[in-house]
Amino acid sequence: MFISFEGTEGVGKTTLIRKLHDYYIEQGKEVVLTREPGGTPLAEQIRSLLLSVNHDEKMNSDTELLLMYAARAQHLQQVIMPALNAGKIVLCDRFVDSSYAYQCAGRGLSKQKLKLLNEHFVEKMPDVTFWLDAPIELGMNRARERGALDRFEQEKVSFFEKVRSGFAEIYRIEPDRMRRLDATQTPEKVFEDALGCLK
Amino acid sequence: MFISFEGTEGVGKTTLIRKLHDYYIEQGKEVVLTREPGGTPLAEQIRSLLLSVNHDEKMNSDTELLLMYAARAQHLQQVIMPALNAGKIVLCDRFVDSSYAYQCAGRGLSKQKLKLLNEHFVEKMPDVTFWLDAPIELGMNRARERGALDRFEQEKVSFFEKVRSGFAEIYRIEPDRMRRLDATQTPEKVFEDALGCLK
Ligand SMILES: Nc1ncnc2c1ncn2[C@@H]1O[C@H](COP(=O)(O)OP(=O)(O)OP(=O)(O)O)[C@@H](O)[C@H]1O
Ligand SMILES: Nc1ncnc2c1ncn2[C@@H]1O[C@H](COP(=O)(O)OP(=O)(O)OP(=O)(O)O)[C@@H](O)[C@H]1O
Ligand SMILES: [Mg+2]
Ligand SMILES: [Mg+2]
Repeated sequence: MFISFEGTEGVGKTTLIRKLHDYYIEQGKEVVLTREPGGTPLAEQIRSLLLSVNHDEKMNSDTELLLMYAARAQHLQQVIMPALNAGKIVLCDRFVDSSYAYQCAGRGLSKQKLKLLNEHFVEKMPDVTFWLDAPIELGMNRARERGALDRFEQEKVSFFEKVRSGFAEIYRIEPDRMRRLDATQTPEKVFEDALGCLK
Repeated sequence: MFISFEGTEGVGKTTLIRKLHDYYIEQGKEVVLTREPGGTPLAEQIRSLLLSVNHDEKMNSDTELLLMYAARAQHLQQVIMPALNAGKIVLCDRFVDSSYAYQCAGRGLSKQKLKLLNEHFVEKMPDVTFWLDAPIELGMNRARERGALDRFEQEKVSFFEKVRSGFAEIYRIEPDRMRRLDATQTPEKVFEDALGCLK
């Protein structure tokens, strides 16, 4: 069972994933909690390149997309596939849908580029994806507490509106895989709704 | 004019590129000397990830390929295209043919993957590519002086034989773009042959 968690900044992905993790552990299940970009030491180094802010050199959208997929290839082959093959539950904080929402819907990269990267470099799609949906301002307010903003967090609201509509588009096309959760609710209610989808 | 330089380790690419650089400068031409992976601060950070040796985590071939293309996308858009558009000569130490020779011929990745990365992420191919060809041992002996070996240099002779045959294959398919130089000759003769090809 491979479950991914998607949504714009601060909607509560990490909060939900921790609750589900604890829930499965209590049930005696073997669970791997991981995240993208990242999830292995090398992929985390790629994550640092992706998130760090450098005012002297703009990162191109193509470069950003390819770095995401480089980290993903490493993460899939080193962590996700071995865990799934060993019968474990994998909970992944962001996955391919974030690439679609941020790089295509957000930055305007062609869907064609993403499609072929998925076809050739992603051997396994999530069984279920939770899309935590909430107005951009709400997530930003929740997240504002956390100090210095990374390269993505520094984007404008209009960028995140495009990202949100990217998630909405996937939800329209793949309603069986992607489940929308109303992330304006309390953490407890969001968790309850997620559990409901999994039963 | 976009010229790339290819070949296995230590055959004399950097030596030739410097001579050509000085030659063009003497002629009053504007020349940009650059290299892959690398060529911008961010791409050089990606290069460090690619070359550094980590015994705790094996880098997957897909990850390696995608990191190469991430660095290349940055390099093309930040350095190569602006220089070519400004009418400068660009001399590039390694380019797409190294990806073919090392990742496909060497590591066994599918040509299909490389083809689509080239189609979607490489907007400009070199006008001329010099392939400096010499037996593997000869280059290794020349390069041995340089101290600690990077992640590629630590490969076995059999790996580099495959890489060399990868370059040979491109040479067979694209003899107009790719010019073979006999790299067993003196640096002066190699330079002379290269100049001959450019006239
Ligand atoms: N349903 C909720 N209601 C109110 N606050 C919440 C809710 N879910 C999470 N929070 C709080 O909002 C903040 C952001 O939550 P969290 O870190 O889980 O979001 P995230 O989606 O993982 O953010 P990021 O995209 O930055 O990783 C945290 O302080 C968290 O405690
Ligand atoms: N034609 C030549 N004959 C003899 N020695 C040479 C020749 N060309 C280069 N060398 C010497 O061989 C060594 C390797 O040359 P160089 O650094 O140019 O190779 P390279 O192809 O750029 O290597 P690398 O793949 O490691 O970057 C250097 O010490 C250089 O001076
Ligand atoms: Mg989070
Ligand atoms: Mg060199």
